[in-house]
Amino acid sequence: MTDYIIEEAKGAFRRIQKEQVSALIAFDGQLSQIRDTWDRAGGGGGDTRILQDGRVIEKGGLNFSAVEGAVGPELREQMQTQAGRFSATGVSSVLHPHNPHVPIIHMNVRCFSLDDGTWWFGGGIDLTPHYVVPEEAKAFHADLKAVCDRHAVADYPAFKAWADRYFYSPHRAESRGVGGIFFDHLGRGGGVDWQAALDFCVDLAGQYASIYARRASAFVDHPVSDAELNWQGLRRGRYVEFNLVHDRGTRFGLVSGGRTESILMSLPARAQWSYNHTPTEGSREAETLDCLKRGEAGTDWLGLD
Amino acid sequence: MTDYIIEEAKGAFRRIQKEQVSALIAFDGQLSQIRDTWDRAGGGGGDTRILQDGRVIEKGGLNFSAVEGAVGPELREQMQTQAGRFSATGVSSVLHPHNPHVPIIHMNVRCFSLDDGTWWFGGGIDLTPHYVVPEEAKAFHADLKAVCDRHAVADYPAFKAWADRYFYSPHRAESRGVGGIFFDHLGRGGGVDWQAALDFCVDLAGQYASIYARRASAFVDHPVSDAELNWQGLRRGRYVEFNLVHDRGTRFGLVSGGRTESILMSLPARAQWSYNHTPTEGSREAETLDCLKRGEAGTDWLGLD
Repeated sequence: MTDYIIEEAKGAFRRIQKEQVSALIAFDGQLSQIRDTWDRAGGGGGDTRILQDGRVIEKGGLNFSAVEGAVGPELREQMQTQAGRFSATGVSSVLHPHNPHVPIIHMNVRCFSLDDGTWWFGGGIDLTPHYVVPEEAKAFHADLKAVCDRHAVADYPAFKAWADRYFYSPHRAESRGVGGIFFDHLGRGGGVDWQAALDFCVDLAGQYASIYARRASAFVDHPVSDAELNWQGLRRGRYVEFNLVHDRGTRFGLVSGGRTESILMSLPARAQWSYNHTPTEGSREAETLDCLKRGEAGTDWLGLD
Repeated sequence: MTDYIIEEAKGAFRRIQKEQVSALIAFDGQLSQIRDTWDRAGGGGGDTRILQDGRVIEKGGLNFSAVEGAVGPELREQMQTQAGRFSATGVSSVLHPHNPHVPIIHMNVRCFSLDDGTWWFGGGIDLTPHYVVPEEAKAFHADLKAVCDRHAVADYPAFKAWADRYFYSPHRAESRGVGGIFFDHLGRGGGVDWQAALDFCVDLAGQYASIYARRASAFVDHPVSDAELNWQGLRRGRYVEFNLVHDRGTRFGLVSGGRTESILMSLPARAQWSYNHTPTEGSREAETLDCLKRGEAGTDWLGLD
């Protein structure tokens, strides 16, 4: 087992959690934190930090976990491996803001190691605005590209396209949001230095709070109408659908005996459904839907004029 | 193809939809109805009736569909068949009430037919109280048993146990509600008269509105506190989780190109999530959770004193 990689990643991810929680608390100014540490029956455990009832953030969290155990049938299929034991560590976060003009954000970085000597990293950051503002999407992608450009192991165009495919809801024919980057199995095929892969994950996750603050700040005090709150509720409903129906991480966690409360930390405080809701033509809601209905290839936000 | 069975079932299920919509509108007294007829790209279509903003019912509906087409890879696996074409028809309904003291109810009856000459019926009714009242659960099960007892093809104890297994959320270690009856593949193995199976489905679905009215009436004007509305939101969140994570009908429909809006008619207008919510010991909320956490075998409601 490549225990030293997991040990390094654990230490780094713990630091990331601490730093990013502090940075989000400083940014928000009024967040409540609930700290919940837990053990996993099969081995390992985690430290879940719930962040809620703030000035900006209504409900969210930043979860650290480091687990290990036997590779069961679900893991065997999901990971395409015959290995007997695994170790995994990761940090993940979702933040749902109060104001519908502030976007939802999600981040995850993780490291897997198997007792056949293989290891890999995965992760990403993606943004889900309730109202898509193209210049904001462009600036978000520019931030992610800047992180990728600092690391030879990171390929922004490939990771951007991967996020577009991953965060797509076929049953709605909609993208979850404006995408971001997503990568998996980084290092698994060989040819990648583990320290370089970890450095990239740490850099990416280390930018999380500041990337979010840049997208959120200008909209925190944006005026809000009841119609906009209603639309936010419906978009949150779509977020719930994506996570519970399609998200491989969520589904895998729920069916393989993961810790339900920590996994479903990603769900909003409130979500809404309305039969066949169709925004008025030409409305900002219709413009947002138009941006989200461009297919699995998404939008080349950086290519916008 | 056993077209005559599907044709008979179609006619019967259309009548059921009409009658039950009328009965629910009469019971509620203030329901708005939206009628939405639709075609399916692969063949067939449906008639979705949304029932909402009533005196009792906040959001719900009664969907009729009759579809046909090629047996694709998902159907082949789900139905365990090598047949080339299928026909299916069914009626399904979910009703979410305003008042947290009124339960959520779900009904479905359906008929499948394949071009290898096989056919079968499936369906059920189950009840999801936000607050479990054991005598109400007992009366509900007595109603279902009475329907089953009128039909030689229906086995209440077996169908009751099937519902307990089916409507169970492993990731929460919770039953969705107080169960009911569930059955599938009725007639598939032979030895069952199709007319007898259809008669049972028609009798069951024909009791739907009156079964619901008996459970709802006494609680429609029950006083409601903010804490109870909050609990209702959280229980609705669990309902959303069950439907999107576990319900085989919902998941199969969403991944196999079913009509998303008609399938997700089952979701409530609003649902809530709160990290690790734990009711106060001895509260009515804690009593309800106790009733729902008895494992996959559920509760013998009819056996209660």
